[in-house]
Amino acid sequence: MYRSHTCGELNSSAIGNQITLSGWVQKIRNKGFMIWVDLRDRYGITQLIFDEERSSEELMQKAATLGREFVIQVKGEVIERESKNPNIPTGEIEVLVNELSILNTSLTPPFTIENKTDGGEDLRMKYRYLDIRRNPVKDKLVFRHKVGMQVRNYLSNEGFIEVETPYLIKSTPEGARDFVVPSRMNEGQFYALPQSPQTFKQLLMVGGMDKYFQIVKCFRDEDLRADRQPEFTQIDCEMAFVEQEDILSIFEGLTKHLLKEVNGVEVDKFPRMTYEDAMKKYGNDKPDIRFGMEFGELNEVTKHKDFKIFNEAELVVGIAVPGGASYSRKEIDKLVDWVKRPQVGALGMVYAKYNEDGSFKSSVDKFYDEEDLAQWAEKTNAKLGDLICVLSGDTNKVRAQLSTLRMEMAERLGLRKADDFAPLWVIDFPLLEWDEETERYHAMHHPFTSPKIEDIPLLESDPGKVRANAYDLVLNGNEIGGGSIRIHDKETQSKMFTHLGFTKEEAKEQFGFLMNAFEYGAPPHGGIAFGFDRLTAILGGQETIRDFIAFPKNNAGRDVMIDAPSKLDEEQLKELSLKLNIE
Amino acid sequence: MYRSHTCGELNSSAIGNQITLSGWVQKIRNKGFMIWVDLRDRYGITQLIFDEERSSEELMQKAATLGREFVIQVKGEVIERESKNPNIPTGEIEVLVNELSILNTSLTPPFTIENKTDGGEDLRMKYRYLDIRRNPVKDKLVFRHKVGMQVRNYLSNEGFIEVETPYLIKSTPEGARDFVVPSRMNEGQFYALPQSPQTFKQLLMVGGMDKYFQIVKCFRDEDLRADRQPEFTQIDCEMAFVEQEDILSIFEGLTKHLLKEVNGVEVDKFPRMTYEDAMKKYGNDKPDIRFGMEFGELNEVTKHKDFKIFNEAELVVGIAVPGGASYSRKEIDKLVDWVKRPQVGALGMVYAKYNEDGSFKSSVDKFYDEEDLAQWAEKTNAKLGDLICVLSGDTNKVRAQLSTLRMEMAERLGLRKADDFAPLWVIDFPLLEWDEETERYHAMHHPFTSPKIEDIPLLESDPGKVRANAYDLVLNGNEIGGGSIRIHDKETQSKMFTHLGFTKEEAKEQFGFLMNAFEYGAPPHGGIAFGFDRLTAILGGQETIRDFIAFPKNNAGRDVMIDAPSKLDEEQLKELSLKLNIE
Repeated sequence: MYRSHTCGELNSSAIGNQITLSGWVQKIRNKGFMIWVDLRDRYGITQLIFDEERSSEELMQKAATLGREFVIQVKGEVIERESKNPNIPTGEIEVLVNELSILNTSLTPPFTIENKTDGGEDLRMKYRYLDIRRNPVKDKLVFRHKVGMQVRNYLSNEGFIEVETPYLIKSTPEGARDFVVPSRMNEGQFYALPQSPQTFKQLLMVGGMDKYFQIVKCFRDEDLRADRQPEFTQIDCEMAFVEQEDILSIFEGLTKHLLKEVNGVEVDKFPRMTYEDAMKKYGNDKPDIRFGMEFGELNEVTKHKDFKIFNEAELVVGIAVPGGASYSRKEIDKLVDWVKRPQVGALGMVYAKYNEDGSFKSSVDKFYDEEDLAQWAEKTNAKLGDLICVLSGDTNKVRAQLSTLRMEMAERLGLRKADDFAPLWVIDFPLLEWDEETERYHAMHHPFTSPKIEDIPLLESDPGKVRANAYDLVLNGNEIGGGSIRIHDKETQSKMFTHLGFTKEEAKEQFGFLMNAFEYGAPPHGGIAFGFDRLTAILGGQETIRDFIAFPKNNAGRDVMIDAPSKLDEEQLKELSLKLNIE
Repeated sequence: MYRSHTCGELNSSAIGNQITLSGWVQKIRNKGFMIWVDLRDRYGITQLIFDEERSSEELMQKAATLGREFVIQVKGEVIERESKNPNIPTGEIEVLVNELSILNTSLTPPFTIENKTDGGEDLRMKYRYLDIRRNPVKDKLVFRHKVGMQVRNYLSNEGFIEVETPYLIKSTPEGARDFVVPSRMNEGQFYALPQSPQTFKQLLMVGGMDKYFQIVKCFRDEDLRADRQPEFTQIDCEMAFVEQEDILSIFEGLTKHLLKEVNGVEVDKFPRMTYEDAMKKYGNDKPDIRFGMEFGELNEVTKHKDFKIFNEAELVVGIAVPGGASYSRKEIDKLVDWVKRPQVGALGMVYAKYNEDGSFKSSVDKFYDEEDLAQWAEKTNAKLGDLICVLSGDTNKVRAQLSTLRMEMAERLGLRKADDFAPLWVIDFPLLEWDEETERYHAMHHPFTSPKIEDIPLLESDPGKVRANAYDLVLNGNEIGGGSIRIHDKETQSKMFTHLGFTKEEAKEQFGFLMNAFEYGAPPHGGIAFGFDRLTAILGGQETIRDFIAFPKNNAGRDVMIDAPSKLDEEQLKELSLKLNIE
């Protein structure tokens, strides 16, 4: 071992001891007669001192050659520090060095290895191995490890077995695009990388594994949106002989366990909300309930006057922004512009100030009197001093727009507190969703999601109204998990395939082995999958996942550090029986 | 929940209780007036009873329709069993059923779901989800989970951080063949799946992560030998600021921890053996030291007579097979035939019986007298009653042949006991190995393995003699782990590349990003990787890995259950800018 201690553990109790440390040179202050070096490793920083009165000339000269990020080993005595630093655990001591070995030199790093770096995103990605030396990145990776360990401990204690499912599987054209892997030994054939182990976990249930989980990489060849990765990690879980309530209970337990062990936060029983209510109250199936601003539907109290825009709208709906009555005309105009940006897409915004003195002032005073506006206030739960913002139009669109406004205002008002955790189950998702493009229904989750028994008759008459035994776990406005109870009997399954527009042959072609497996005694089962990257980020108080991933890819799916993907040589292509098809 | 208890937990303390069970019908005995059903789930088997005196006629009729592997739920009373079965935990009780729901029917399974099944390997693989219901397979998967948890707990307690490294990386022509993944977004370019996270774990050390581990899938597109899988799992580990001794100590600790926690076995400090000694004493760099039969080199005591075969041989070497002196002439002839099979490849075998009365009888009595043979006995450590088997020829070949014979005899004599664990460190591996085909030296481990400092001068004069800071952990004759201290300075690294025949450009092309990283302060570091499939199998007392993998592939790299790999449709190929190149 190149050290007797780490750079994070020495304190005043070690004063007088001879110790050995190794690490990176974080900072050097050279006063000539004295040289201080901050030595850094994963565990912390310890101050080293070289002093011409107490150190040899040779040692002083050697210390003077050190540069940032040199790797060194020092031996020396722990002494009390003159000017103590109460902000770090080692701040009471320093090490008077009597031996210095330079284990490796370093070029000047392309950005500073500090908590706040001068390096831009691109540079940091290219030199990710240096970026990882910075506390904000390193700490997130350590945090991710802790979350993973706690997930495994909890589930293992609950009797779940982690089973590794294969990565080289079969491509199915359904769903998102697969990444594929040409097989050299099976000419002209391809494996696919799993988008999720969905089929395998269901097969494990058929196989009697009873409680399965896996923290596993999944792959989706999608055009990447911001903060999406082509490879991502899931906590994938499945249980047999369970109903929805059992799943909610176990995984509410898991989430509570994580919040307690990782964040030190105790949370009460998670509230539940139907998909329908979530859309109605928050315009969103993953509402952030850390704050209010619930939607107030205003159709009843707006359509009795001559305001044509509202009268023609399918939905008139508003929120009360706390303290917004004090906004200036200019501020409100900017807000109106903001909702009209194409990213939000509203055509305009009506507002009403509910002044501190109880009076109202609206942008539609021509049409609505104080009595009307008082009703708006009641519906939106506005308090004195609030600003009521009202959007109108097509129900789905206007809900999405108002949800975006709600989140923006919460952000601006500092209501989305990173250390405040508000989990929520959203339940009773629709089974099917209408796809405008293909003009048919798609499974909202996946084709094995079971409908609610009482809604099965609606499959014929009103498929869009059928609710599923499907649920999402939402944390602070982010979907962190989702799952369903699966169909385990052949009759319901084939009914579902019919409604999804699969012929018997297509269903057999795509899901044949699962359908076969279901012939041999499939138990009732259901499960859930958590997005591990996202979950970790949110528990870590962040909304972007990238720094919780050691080596992320950029938005073009490239790893700029290793420069992948890259070209293959002709020989490799030939072995794989492939030719490039580029015009 | 479909049950109040599992099928493995009810015993006499539950007698009189009303309970609910769910599971699969394992066995039915229908006497007409009484029907017994063995109900099975992951946790065990509970006997159900339907009795015409105590059950309704309707219930009797329903029970009579049950078939093997039907999924049922029963409610009933726990009662004392008349003929108790002491072999199972639930053997004292049975459940008098008063309610039966058939949750799912089952076709007759293609093989019996019993510990000893009538299903052949191919059928079992095709219906793997049924095979997993059998205890021997299910128990191995549960066992694997336990091993994995213990690995993670030990390493996490030792301060290791599990960091997920990417799966979509860059292809390098060096080493085994990569599986590649065409990138749709980067036309004509490919990712590769990792053969191991070697580069990334070294980058994590450069990044200051200090102690890294990961249980991770790796991929190698090799022509498959028996018991090899194209995807396999490693416990991959790396540490910074360490010397070889530190790695051996930590991972000896891990292995002891596993043996203790998983197998209940306490093992002393692991013996160590140099590669040279292992080859000399066992003809093998992964010797099984659970038994003796060490090699005795006989050159000195055989070359003084007129036996031309020995006189011309580079090496004459023997082992003493315990009790072998009693073998008949016919048995010995069969043994000679066995070593001459092409799989072993010996040209012949000389033997000498060391009879119980102290006399000798050899196949070369013409050349060697009792005094000579007594020397053979001394060199091979033969006891009264042993058979000395002697092979001769080219050193490397004859060692390999005698090693094969040694293992075979141990197997036949029952000396390879599954519950006996004999770990061994093999150290001081050669740095380089001569490749006949390309007529140059290859890195025996990989090009970043550090040579022993004292051997560096030999790099010029006698490269084959240079020893590396490389080590393997051997358990019961299987390599379960291997690793090395890495080169962390540029000078040694570029010297190595020269000796491996890489030009500067080639080294830069293939390892450029790692070489770059090393410019910015790489710490001394080293690591090890365990084959998780193999480790688990050996701890589980088996030598084949297949049943420790939930969904293994066959020797053609196919998953016969899901029928992968398979053809892609034209559209998919086109999106990937690929064409098949099949003549």
